[in-house]
Amino acid sequence: MKEISGNSFVLYGDICYSETKDKLFTKEGGYLVSVDGVSMGVFDELPEEYRSLPLIDYGGKLIIPGMVDMHIHAPQFAYRGTDMDLELMDWLSEKTFPEEAKYRDTDYADRAYSIFADAMRRGATTHAAIFATKHKEATELLMDKLEAVGIVSYVGKVNMDREAPPELCEASAEASARETVEWLEAIKGKYKLTKPILTPRFIPCCSKKLLDRLGEIQIEYDLPVQSHLSENQGEVEFVRRLAPKSAFYGDAYDYHGLFGTEHTRGKAVNTIMAHCVYSTEEEMQRMKENGVFVAHCPASNINLSSGIAPIRKYLDLGLRMGLGSDVAGGHTDSMFEAICDAVQVSKLYWRLVDQSAKPLSFAEAFYLATRGGGEFFGRVGGFDAGYELSAVVLDDGLIERPMALSIKDRVESAAYCALDLYGISAKYVRGVRIA
Amino acid sequence: MKEISGNSFVLYGDICYSETKDKLFTKEGGYLVSVDGVSMGVFDELPEEYRSLPLIDYGGKLIIPGMVDMHIHAPQFAYRGTDMDLELMDWLSEKTFPEEAKYRDTDYADRAYSIFADAMRRGATTHAAIFATKHKEATELLMDKLEAVGIVSYVGKVNMDREAPPELCEASAEASARETVEWLEAIKGKYKLTKPILTPRFIPCCSKKLLDRLGEIQIEYDLPVQSHLSENQGEVEFVRRLAPKSAFYGDAYDYHGLFGTEHTRGKAVNTIMAHCVYSTEEEMQRMKENGVFVAHCPASNINLSSGIAPIRKYLDLGLRMGLGSDVAGGHTDSMFEAICDAVQVSKLYWRLVDQSAKPLSFAEAFYLATRGGGEFFGRVGGFDAGYELSAVVLDDGLIERPMALSIKDRVESAAYCALDLYGISAKYVRGVRIA
Repeated sequence: MKEISGNSFVLYGDICYSETKDKLFTKEGGYLVSVDGVSMGVFDELPEEYRSLPLIDYGGKLIIPGMVDMHIHAPQFAYRGTDMDLELMDWLSEKTFPEEAKYRDTDYADRAYSIFADAMRRGATTHAAIFATKHKEATELLMDKLEAVGIVSYVGKVNMDREAPPELCEASAEASARETVEWLEAIKGKYKLTKPILTPRFIPCCSKKLLDRLGEIQIEYDLPVQSHLSENQGEVEFVRRLAPKSAFYGDAYDYHGLFGTEHTRGKAVNTIMAHCVYSTEEEMQRMKENGVFVAHCPASNINLSSGIAPIRKYLDLGLRMGLGSDVAGGHTDSMFEAICDAVQVSKLYWRLVDQSAKPLSFAEAFYLATRGGGEFFGRVGGFDAGYELSAVVLDDGLIERPMALSIKDRVESAAYCALDLYGISAKYVRGVRIA
Repeated sequence: MKEISGNSFVLYGDICYSETKDKLFTKEGGYLVSVDGVSMGVFDELPEEYRSLPLIDYGGKLIIPGMVDMHIHAPQFAYRGTDMDLELMDWLSEKTFPEEAKYRDTDYADRAYSIFADAMRRGATTHAAIFATKHKEATELLMDKLEAVGIVSYVGKVNMDREAPPELCEASAEASARETVEWLEAIKGKYKLTKPILTPRFIPCCSKKLLDRLGEIQIEYDLPVQSHLSENQGEVEFVRRLAPKSAFYGDAYDYHGLFGTEHTRGKAVNTIMAHCVYSTEEEMQRMKENGVFVAHCPASNINLSSGIAPIRKYLDLGLRMGLGSDVAGGHTDSMFEAICDAVQVSKLYWRLVDQSAKPLSFAEAFYLATRGGGEFFGRVGGFDAGYELSAVVLDDGLIERPMALSIKDRVESAAYCALDLYGISAKYVRGVRIA
């Protein structure tokens, strides 16, 4: 019998996770074994070697993998669900940029990010890719708070040196790059769960010179990248004018090695592009070749009247993909809502746009919110042996019923009834209980 | 000073209601006076004549009108949020009809309707138009429970004598009519808050003979009417084949005096038609002429892949209209979600279908969920003097913020953050606190 040390335990309950892209594994009364933050798998009967571990009994409750939020703006959490009558470009200039400018004030940032980090702790999300603002001090503060609450995250100080109001625009490409390096140096080795990610806001806000410098910083620090892509028709048209030599929107990132592949050495660059509502065939192909992750953000794409991303096509193409809440274009950090929204918009896409694009099943959307996005973080989003043990325990007894349901129906209903807002009994990240 | 007797009080808090179709009235620290279940209006300073009334201090909390759910199926609440991968006609035959058949068993109905009624008590809904099943005993049980919890409702025993499985199909038009009369006689004078409503399921399930008999019963008992209309393309096509002499779907109801107007005497028949996704211009005109209420059910229309109703057109035409949760085509009884869904689908309609159809504002959707549907019930859905005092108190302090917001932003955010699921501090219906 092998030695088991440290923080190890067994969770007992009704277990559900995505086995494949369209198939849920379910086990009523199963044992999920966690050894030092890593899953040993799910068992009908507890194997002999794990019988000495503490057993935590969640009998009758659901145990599912933690949610992976591929795209969320921490500074926008403060005004989630307000001014939803605006479209993207107006929403940015009238609401978002003035709000983000407040984060030069670290007292304000401290208040706002405390609230955000606590919401991340309490909700169903265990892993997130997060935009901060351009401010390096506030960004470090955010990382401190996320590390303290215990979720796994990538956090980006935002880069933007044009097409933004003076109080939010960085003085020059060089100034933006310098601030970025100073931020990276300040946090070097500081965190276990919280990592930096290069975060050019989007092409309209980043000069060619800035992108050049970010490409260099990417190589020097071996950083992942996150940004926005082909979200809105007006924005895509704007990028066409700003970057006339690019074959398509994403090509403007790719030229600088910020689109999944670092060209001089051909090395992979773990990259998330949020939205991809209006990606052309060429852009899709490049994403596939370069291994770019799509962060599908259905709520945001509705709220900002952007449209509906062709997710069935991306699935068929085999693109890497997850879901993002995109607070505050999205109105909530609930990834359960993101799952349901993903199914819902795919139905409208099928009905109104393309009857050859079969709607997403619940199992497919659940996959995207767990394993799909989880791949960006490593072995995350499932309970297979060797995966990170990050899990959410749900008390779906709060959704009263006159009859019994299958586990699959219970999980689907938990998502549609937004149980992550009021029914989380416990949350574990890498084997540590944080809620 | 006039005499004030009975159940009268003053609510103090941050008040918001729809003044007009697109304008919210807001008052920070306002006094809402309730005398015997009727609003005396909202005041900056409490008038002398009301100073002796008990004052309930909800300072810092939001006070809004109760929500009006124009369309909900009580027996479907049991399986809300499950099997959402099915389209309307399959969902009816595979899920809904077998589930509804269970309500012949009054023990099952008792369990299920207790859960439903308690949810109606706890949520933000104060007024609802409700479908039961064909079973008269179970329908009466449902009415007993709704009366006990204290919401205001219309409840319908469903009529259906064709195109349904044997266990749910009534034996004949005459049998269906007889059961309906027996139900109406059994509940006569029994309730204060709970009223019967004629409920032919929809044209596919009702023979011409049955509709004839229901038209007669409508006249005899002077009943309002609720049904479904032009929800799904396949359904509309089916009705065209079933009722070839009707000019359009709604005409098949109108012929029998079940579409807003009773023809022999020209008397108004208070009528709700749910969905209206595919109504023709002719149908819209008839709805307007006859004063039919549209129950717009956006979540259901997405979940069942029906499409998006042209709500801007209905508003411009001046149709009477409210919102419906349509559980379980809709996955939740949350009317806050219905408000947000109404805004959201109108944005997608604008983006994907008709760029001349301006999206709904939050204020417009809030209006529909309160005053719009409230008109069906009388002077309901506002706090103007003379309106029913039905109100919900919300603790939106649960949505933490680093800054202060306007009341309008707070109400919008409460809706988008689904605060009705976890943040209701109190609920009053006709001046009686029920939660």
